[in-house]
Amino acid sequence: MKNILIIGCGLIGSSILRAINKKKIAKKIFVYEKSKKTILKIKKLELKCIITHDLKNIIPKSDLIIFCTPMSEYEKIIIKINKYLVSKTIITDVGSSREKISKLIKNKLKRGIHWTPGHPISGSEVSGPEFGDKNLFLNKWCILIKDKKSNKKHLTVLSKFWKKIGSKILIMDSKKHDMIFSITSHLPHLIAYNLIKTATDFEKSKKYNIIQFSAGGLRDFSRIAASNEVMWRDIFFNNQFNVIKGIDLFIKNLRSFKKDISSRNNKSLIKKLVETKKVREKIIKLKQDINKPDFGRN
Amino acid sequence: MKNILIIGCGLIGSSILRAINKKKIAKKIFVYEKSKKTILKIKKLELKCIITHDLKNIIPKSDLIIFCTPMSEYEKIIIKINKYLVSKTIITDVGSSREKISKLIKNKLKRGIHWTPGHPISGSEVSGPEFGDKNLFLNKWCILIKDKKSNKKHLTVLSKFWKKIGSKILIMDSKKHDMIFSITSHLPHLIAYNLIKTATDFEKSKKYNIIQFSAGGLRDFSRIAASNEVMWRDIFFNNQFNVIKGIDLFIKNLRSFKKDISSRNNKSLIKKLVETKKVREKIIKLKQDINKPDFGRN
Repeated sequence: MKNILIIGCGLIGSSILRAINKKKIAKKIFVYEKSKKTILKIKKLELKCIITHDLKNIIPKSDLIIFCTPMSEYEKIIIKINKYLVSKTIITDVGSSREKISKLIKNKLKRGIHWTPGHPISGSEVSGPEFGDKNLFLNKWCILIKDKKSNKKHLTVLSKFWKKIGSKILIMDSKKHDMIFSITSHLPHLIAYNLIKTATDFEKSKKYNIIQFSAGGLRDFSRIAASNEVMWRDIFFNNQFNVIKGIDLFIKNLRSFKKDISSRNNKSLIKKLVETKKVREKIIKLKQDINKPDFGRN
Repeated sequence: MKNILIIGCGLIGSSILRAINKKKIAKKIFVYEKSKKTILKIKKLELKCIITHDLKNIIPKSDLIIFCTPMSEYEKIIIKINKYLVSKTIITDVGSSREKISKLIKNKLKRGIHWTPGHPISGSEVSGPEFGDKNLFLNKWCILIKDKKSNKKHLTVLSKFWKKIGSKILIMDSKKHDMIFSITSHLPHLIAYNLIKTATDFEKSKKYNIIQFSAGGLRDFSRIAASNEVMWRDIFFNNQFNVIKGIDLFIKNLRSFKKDISSRNNKSLIKKLVETKKVREKIIKLKQDINKPDFGRN
């Protein structure tokens, strides 16, 4: 490719930037970033790219545009760039929920322009370009969305692009995507936030300093609950329906655990605990996590 | 000390054994272990200790006895060793909940014998002596329990013992202990088990293979949910009252999150997400976790 434009250059945007540079995929990489603080960081990090605000000139000559902002920014930016877009340009993003945002994109995007959504299953609890990593996508899934009106050529090019920077590709529709990731990603994040909220509420009510004992298990949740609040608000709002279904299922199951504990139902409790244990083995086997006790932390 | 007896030599027992050897705290370390498989492992690992079943001879000459079995084993063993116990022997354990088990110990232990409970805040999702580590307790909290009838001399000796193997000591009563750890340890474990249960239920109902996408957040919970089922059943049953209170508080908070998401209450949701974020910083500052994104995993 000649020119790639990255819109929003935080953790994910800057990781894509680094990966493109590493693999020499584009001649020029343009970065459009609204935060002055982030721009200063990119300059300080000496990331190889051209920071630009000249969308009028850059957009028409971009072969690929990648939205890496929180999803709540899409609308504003689409309205701003619509007039410069041309139909051959491949447009994609890295948003973590799809159905609702796809409707918004469809409604706001100029007719004849194609948007091919993507979702790399990679990230971290930290934000900002200083935490970007050229290997962030290595051997990780990248989900590409194929719906009725998808542009197959764009999908093929994008698939090659993600493979080049190390990802494994899976293509599915928005509905399936949002259902799966409501359980493997969105619900876990919400539960982690909720556990930390519960612990801090408890701490306030009891006036004990309990965080100092967080190594008993709580600390793991605190990592996930430190994730970017804007990004996660957007995800929860966008995948509202599935996340709420997940919450209801979670509460139903938690009530069943409560019943086992209240009634000291040994058989039922042990059955649940043994079954969940098997999932860890499966995850390790699928290389979805490091095969070291305690994540190799200590 | 001359002789230390470790009863139960899994992850924690064998870590204590290794730490005692490293620090040369005892002349002889005896190990009483009922599992033949575990005994074979200890021999293969060439851990420096004397494996024994001769409790009649070993108990009276032990300066310190440390119970490292699941709590549900205590009663049987206490009944077995009662007749050999002498009042000067220091008896302790590493159980993770205290109030209920202390009542059982008080009821079953021969009169005039002291039991000084302990709870090192260290562990892992893996079980067995092969995962033991001489540095497991280094810079970790060890809670020692002081109740009305505690033997102060024994408490002092135990305190020195844990300090020697690297722990930081905190003394509190059973009630406070069980309240704190219901939130920092027991509830997080239950929630992790419940999330994995919810994900597997979902997987079965939808017939999707979702575990392959667990890197989105789910995998972290799977580590905790892989913890020893017998140990955790014992903890949940023993700290029943506080764990159930924790569940109720958790569900109340989760309902509040659900309401925010359903009604797209931006202000309320962002406030919650921002507040939980601060906890991670506090945990890092208190050196309760590694200061690396994603636990330094990738």
